[in-house]
Amino acid sequence: MAFEMTFDGINKSGPKIILVAPQLDQNLGKVARAMLNFGLWDLRLVSPQCDWLSKSARALSAGADGVLEQAKVYPSLEEATADLGYVLATTVRPRDMIKEVYTPRQALVASQEAIDRGQGIGYVFGPEKCGLDNRDIALCNAIVTVPLNPAFSSLNLAQAVVIMAYEWYQTQGGSSSETSPVSKPKLSDTDPLATKEEIHGLVIHLDDELKKAGYYRTAHKRPLMLQNLSNLFHRFSMTRQEVRTLRGVVSTLVNPHGIYSRMTRRRAEKAGADPKKEKDTP
Amino acid sequence: MAFEMTFDGINKSGPKIILVAPQLDQNLGKVARAMLNFGLWDLRLVSPQCDWLSKSARALSAGADGVLEQAKVYPSLEEATADLGYVLATTVRPRDMIKEVYTPRQALVASQEAIDRGQGIGYVFGPEKCGLDNRDIALCNAIVTVPLNPAFSSLNLAQAVVIMAYEWYQTQGGSSSETSPVSKPKLSDTDPLATKEEIHGLVIHLDDELKKAGYYRTAHKRPLMLQNLSNLFHRFSMTRQEVRTLRGVVSTLVNPHGIYSRMTRRRAEKAGADPKKEKDTP
Repeated sequence: MAFEMTFDGINKSGPKIILVAPQLDQNLGKVARAMLNFGLWDLRLVSPQCDWLSKSARALSAGADGVLEQAKVYPSLEEATADLGYVLATTVRPRDMIKEVYTPRQALVASQEAIDRGQGIGYVFGPEKCGLDNRDIALCNAIVTVPLNPAFSSLNLAQAVVIMAYEWYQTQGGSSSETSPVSKPKLSDTDPLATKEEIHGLVIHLDDELKKAGYYRTAHKRPLMLQNLSNLFHRFSMTRQEVRTLRGVVSTLVNPHGIYSRMTRRRAEKAGADPKKEKDTP
Repeated sequence: MAFEMTFDGINKSGPKIILVAPQLDQNLGKVARAMLNFGLWDLRLVSPQCDWLSKSARALSAGADGVLEQAKVYPSLEEATADLGYVLATTVRPRDMIKEVYTPRQALVASQEAIDRGQGIGYVFGPEKCGLDNRDIALCNAIVTVPLNPAFSSLNLAQAVVIMAYEWYQTQGGSSSETSPVSKPKLSDTDPLATKEEIHGLVIHLDDELKKAGYYRTAHKRPLMLQNLSNLFHRFSMTRQEVRTLRGVVSTLVNPHGIYSRMTRRRAEKAGADPKKEKDTP
């Protein structure tokens, strides 16, 4: 019912709202309401810690039940963002990480390249109590922070969603734009940005080869070292072709002159992959 | 206490938030929180229908009790706005009245003249259930309407305040330009951005290893392939440490478990380089 009632106002190309381990069902209701207020529909929940279809969540959605009912649940942020081209981590705290930090308005400019290519974008929000951890932030292209009174800067989850959704809606012709986003220098149209899944693929490929090569001197060092590498590759906006190029580079370095090519190919064929695909040249 | 704690972040020339006949104490708590989030302090209540100092209002203010405690109560909107130079009525419904209707962003431009003259401005919000009546709207200079999904346009009072306060705060130098990030990737003093020379070093290192590994199938393909790789790494803003990390990755991949380490070291020592330096971990 809610779906039919509200479907008209929905913009399917709007940002996906991704909540990592949300804790309070009331907040989910308010988030759904805020999303629908600004024509957003795609809600993604990573390991939710509460019932997003509870009576209380539905009541606070104030008629946006449809958003809650359509919400998709994922076991990890990797999976929740796999199909997206550009993903922003929302956080109020400065992090000791090498990432661009944008205001909500700037974030839309930064997302424009992916939007122009018809690729999905996502805003990731952390658990109410602690926010996103560094591992999750490392999977995002950049950070978006709502400028707040530094003396009082705790923003409620639903209100953070309101602001992000509101800013996005401003660019949808709903209001006269004083701030039409400047689009970035364009890469060729036939060469789309890599999806998060493709970047994950590169990081996993590299991790796998580094493990075999003894890069991680001790097991306990691996998580941080891997996070640093992950942060590096997710931060760069790479095209699909560039990801393939880097995978080809890694494959060549570990297998010079295709010495192990027959063995590798047999292993890969068993696993259903096509090893030639990974060796694309730049 | 709350006053002292938060006074630093307050901008006394910010818009006054004027609530006409608010009905729910929880909303008052949330409004106070939203105000303080964006450095607003002056809350005015016209004939409040609930207790703005209730336990529930205080709890939902999340520490912005000071705003509730300082709130002034007025018997009419005329009195609540008497000292102000420019007043905007917030409403989501188009009214049968001859008044300018602004978006929140445009409203700030419209208010600027009063602000420039050192006069106070105010945003007026109506009761939760019915909004402002025409008599109240007639007392205001103009109308401000948050652009919303026409199919789902009921905005919670606190969220309307969030948006108005947020837009105002954007003009306060809290955020800088609309296109360049608030903060470039945060780098500690000991971890500067790599110089072009260091990026060249990485590219040459990689080129060297790729040549040895037979990556460039034919010699004439090399210039373009190398140019693509070079373009990739120069486009990314990497720190010096990240360049070292990537060089460590390349070194490890071509020399798993340091199998050739003695040979490499001897070669490197001949060339005047310290191969250990290249194996820095991330």
